[in-house]
Amino acid sequence: MKVLNHISTLYRVPPGGDQGFVDAISDAALAWDGEQIVYAGPQAGLPPALASAERLDAGGRCVIPGLIDCHTHLCFGGWRGDEFAARLAGASYQDIQAAGGGINSTVARTRAASAAELAAKAGLVLADMARLGVTTVEAKSGYGLDQASEIKQLEVYRRLNDSQPLDIVPTFLGAHLVPVEYRDRRTDYLDLLCQSLIPEVAARDLARFCDVFIEDNAFTLAEGRQILETAKAHGLGLKIHADQLSAGGGAGLAAELGAVSAEHLEYASAADIQAMAEAGTVAVSLPLASMYLREPFLPARQWIEAGARVAVATDFNPGSAPSYHLHLAMTLACIHQQMTPAEVLKAATSHAARAVALHESHGSLLPGYRADFAIIDAPDINHWLYHFRPNACIATIKAGRAVFDGGL
Amino acid sequence: MKVLNHISTLYRVPPGGDQGFVDAISDAALAWDGEQIVYAGPQAGLPPALASAERLDAGGRCVIPGLIDCHTHLCFGGWRGDEFAARLAGASYQDIQAAGGGINSTVARTRAASAAELAAKAGLVLADMARLGVTTVEAKSGYGLDQASEIKQLEVYRRLNDSQPLDIVPTFLGAHLVPVEYRDRRTDYLDLLCQSLIPEVAARDLARFCDVFIEDNAFTLAEGRQILETAKAHGLGLKIHADQLSAGGGAGLAAELGAVSAEHLEYASAADIQAMAEAGTVAVSLPLASMYLREPFLPARQWIEAGARVAVATDFNPGSAPSYHLHLAMTLACIHQQMTPAEVLKAATSHAARAVALHESHGSLLPGYRADFAIIDAPDINHWLYHFRPNACIATIKAGRAVFDGGL
Repeated sequence: MKVLNHISTLYRVPPGGDQGFVDAISDAALAWDGEQIVYAGPQAGLPPALASAERLDAGGRCVIPGLIDCHTHLCFGGWRGDEFAARLAGASYQDIQAAGGGINSTVARTRAASAAELAAKAGLVLADMARLGVTTVEAKSGYGLDQASEIKQLEVYRRLNDSQPLDIVPTFLGAHLVPVEYRDRRTDYLDLLCQSLIPEVAARDLARFCDVFIEDNAFTLAEGRQILETAKAHGLGLKIHADQLSAGGGAGLAAELGAVSAEHLEYASAADIQAMAEAGTVAVSLPLASMYLREPFLPARQWIEAGARVAVATDFNPGSAPSYHLHLAMTLACIHQQMTPAEVLKAATSHAARAVALHESHGSLLPGYRADFAIIDAPDINHWLYHFRPNACIATIKAGRAVFDGGL
Repeated sequence: MKVLNHISTLYRVPPGGDQGFVDAISDAALAWDGEQIVYAGPQAGLPPALASAERLDAGGRCVIPGLIDCHTHLCFGGWRGDEFAARLAGASYQDIQAAGGGINSTVARTRAASAAELAAKAGLVLADMARLGVTTVEAKSGYGLDQASEIKQLEVYRRLNDSQPLDIVPTFLGAHLVPVEYRDRRTDYLDLLCQSLIPEVAARDLARFCDVFIEDNAFTLAEGRQILETAKAHGLGLKIHADQLSAGGGAGLAAELGAVSAEHLEYASAADIQAMAEAGTVAVSLPLASMYLREPFLPARQWIEAGARVAVATDFNPGSAPSYHLHLAMTLACIHQQMTPAEVLKAATSHAARAVALHESHGSLLPGYRADFAIIDAPDINHWLYHFRPNACIATIKAGRAVFDGGL
């Protein structure tokens, strides 16, 4: 049993209520027993039974639920920094593809890498994420695009779940794009996904969700429906990358099929926004991708006013969002999505937990929830998200144990 | 005498040449004697005389000149995080001013703070800047706006120059805005600046530069000219905050008066861009302010094509740019100012040194220059500026001594 005292502001962030309802308590204390929270409230109300618990001091800093990065492409081979520089020097996307660059180069390097290499590389990222206060990470496959390599990525996530403290929520994204060798026989790739990969992923419990990229140069709405219905029949939860570059109807399909979330969504139609709000499908915004691509940001106010739940995640990947800095994504969501710090906090905790179907156990600081939290070197979240620093997180506790202690 | 071996890429960044000429050397070594560089070149070419020097290993990482943040408002009282949150929640700038917020609240808190308090607060920022690879910082007054408080800010910079390792270049910005108590008698404030403050600042050598905010709600072009001519007559170098919100002619005045730099400049006219290029006045871009304010970024390609030198700095201040994260400013300059990583590196090293008239001693890694450099955990600057991490700097050396060692 442990008690953290002297918290300036404790954000309990219950799963219910409005986007901006974070249930902030001043002069608070937080207590946990093993992996579970047993008290989260005013310091003055701490039960006497906890008087004998081990005492820690937050030093007048604020405490938030452990951050949940609910959309990443964590495991991949290689990087694409030279492509970034070439684009800035004037090369077109076509030039880069012709030179062997773009997503296909990441596919080639992911296929060529061993599981051990991929796990070591992703493990370094997870360790740095933990320093930022992140305690749970959704992680997609989708750079393998063949039977062995998709399974390899998901096995890397299983290995990481066993070998390091953060929770990894694996998502199967074999439908990221049609790989080059299937370009002239797409239906064969759909068959591979629906008849071979999805059944194996489900049978071996390698992923909790199946995701599809519905976009002009990826999969059509009809193909997406076929893949997702197959996944659903195999017991997988559903996610959709939708409406990133144009209004393609992906958000509406997510609502119709009962997906836990749809992502990007910058161009979703008003009708589809309403449908997602009514279905309870979380809208996952990815401001770092908007920043790197110089594309529009999610019009979050429209979503919030429609009653939708908005999450914020990094989209960490080697092409369009080569950063796992969730604080930066959150600050950008304030500035460019015009969300308040409270709305953004909920977006990266309880609503992000909902986007991976963990909102009954993760993302809130309430008795019975997992003791996943971060101590932030700021009096409150307004100051934290306004004053962007390399890292304002002082300590990260995962399932009751410190996974990062930067001088508490 | 020390030698740093095993550098993947050494960026020497000479002051001359095009914006993108950074003179990168692969498989390099760097040697210094006390505060000065004595060798910067291929590992294979290291003079035998250096064989007995103390040897360090860069571990195959890249090495850049110490970063120079050539535009900050380092010393101020208080913060304005609640104002940021209020604006996101819908409050107008007028609402915030009426509630006692805005720049006047920073002036009140800076006046109320003691020099010791201000120095302690700024010292924490400088220590964090050093961790990012920053070795020289320009720092402005301008939150005092009366005789005693402007001098107090500049004395804080003098104290910091003596008490911590980074070089502070102080700039007098009494002409930041007309303080509230002078609103109905501006000429009295101009008299205070020209007849009392500038003479004292110059006589006591408290600043190297005098800066003026030329903008609709600050000072007119004619007032700016009067202040700057007075400063020049007293031996101070000149800088101008110009054309941030409209084309006001400030950039042209900077060129005409031989200012070392002009800053912001998002709306400068084509004629004034040309004038600055011809005068050799550095154009200091401030991408973090553009990001926080959701204003346009500097059209850097237009400046570079005109032959101007472009610098990148943070503009760190508690209102429009509450971040001192120079890496982020640099990544934003790549993405939004369409500058290549090489152009941006020069912008934050040699050209930034030129913006504070130190380009003959700082900002380049050439024999005779100061041994100010940073070891970056990346094979090259393309990877560094593309893959935005909390902090990719591994070690910072200032005048030959480590001021940050994050695990070299």
